Amino acid sequence: METSARNVFRGTVVAVHPGAVNDEVELAVDGGPSIVASITQVSTRKLGLKPGVAAMALIKASFVLLMNDAENYLLSTRNQFSGTVGKVIPGAVNAEVQVDLPGGLGVTAIVTMGSVEKLALAPGKKVTAIVKASQVILAVPR
Amino acid sequence: METSARNVFRGTVVAVHPGAVNDEVELAVDGGPSIVASITQVSTRKLGLKPGVAAMALIKASFVLLMNDAENYLLSTRNQFSGTVGKVIPGAVNAEVQVDLPGGLGVTAIVTMGSVEKLALAPGKKVTAIVKASQVILAVPR
Amino acid sequence: METSARNVFRGTVVAVHPGAVNDEVELAVDGGPSIVASITQVSTRKLGLKPGVAAMALIKASFVLLMNDAENYLLSTRNQFSGTVGKVIPGAVNAEVQVDLPGGLGVTAIVTMGSVEKLALAPGKKVTAIVKASQVILAVPR
Repeated sequence: METSARNVFRGTVVAVHPGAVNDEVELAVDGGPSIVASITQVSTRKLGLKPGVAAMALIKASFVLLMNDAENYLLSTRNQFSGTVGKVIPGAVNAEVQVDLPGGLGVTAIVTMGSVEKLALAPGKKVTAIVKASQVILAVPR
Repeated sequence: METSARNVFRGTVVAVHPGAVNDEVELAVDGGPSIVASITQVSTRKLGLKPGVAAMALIKASFVLLMNDAENYLLSTRNQFSGTVGKVIPGAVNAEVQVDLPGGLGVTAIVTMGSVEKLALAPGKKVTAIVKASQVILAVPR
Repeated sequence: METSARNVFRGTVVAVHPGAVNDEVELAVDGGPSIVASITQVSTRKLGLKPGVAAMALIKASFVLLMNDAENYLLSTRNQFSGTVGKVIPGAVNAEVQVDLPGGLGVTAIVTMGSVEKLALAPGKKVTAIVKASQVILAVPR
């Protein structure tokens, strides 16, 4: 898959929780964490998503939030991935931060340079990458 | 309209699909594609959205994802616009990519420089711009 | 709280409007505006959100849209904060814009440099900061 989404996770659908307009779809990522996506019911049907189906979760780096002290809070975001900063690429306003997850996968986040300073983001720093279910895109091969 | 949303599309509401909290509103864009927005029912009522009403769809450039091989996948995103890269403005971490759509309209996306390289984004390249319905804002003149 | 979300607002839940999958939670911010968050019902329960509960709203700067003439439009976004530009930090592609709100609070937005020019964003300029409810994260201390 050739996409500008810097985060593409391959996995298997383990659950579909239906709603009136949106469904919550849970994906068990190969060698990684579970990812919850909130998508429309129309999409669930169109993609044929049900337990056992192979699918990909796409997450734009600019949708990822980082947190140093996530263990002290309950958050409304369904996706919270604990990891370690692997690399920081600084820019003028934004920075790209690569977070290594246990199991070998990683998450890329775009955060402001202000946050890089405030959170002291540097290789080896423990952080949690946070993504709302409504910002996850699902894909299946045609 | 003076807004930092780099993508503003004018059109006419063609359908409203009601849910419990959110509605899906479909806009036929003048000289362009259809755009689906997921908004709250409160907003649908406040804006008086129903078939035939003129409205604008606002999409922040940082909410737009680009894909080279969208034709090989079924995606959960309701908005997929096939076009051709018109211009790439590189930055340190992010780049601004203008995608020309058939019919004369265009979509602006902010993607990482890593994606510009990986997808070989350059003028003339065919790409699909992808936006989740939950990230589209609707507006009507007062 | 140590988070890359540049906007963290502390307040008290004043209302929870339940839906089938998502709830709309309204937070009265201390010394500031009301903020509406659209979160899953699972999260509402997990965080114990109900009127009177203290909570924080987290908003990534890249999710904030700015508008010069918001008073001329009805918008589908639940969160609209009128204020004055305090500072603009320019980059190559994006800029960070700090918007001062009445009451002493502020909102930070990441917008493109193209928007900074088009909207003539500079200290003293009146603007409205706009955020969809679906992009607000809620947190409570454990």
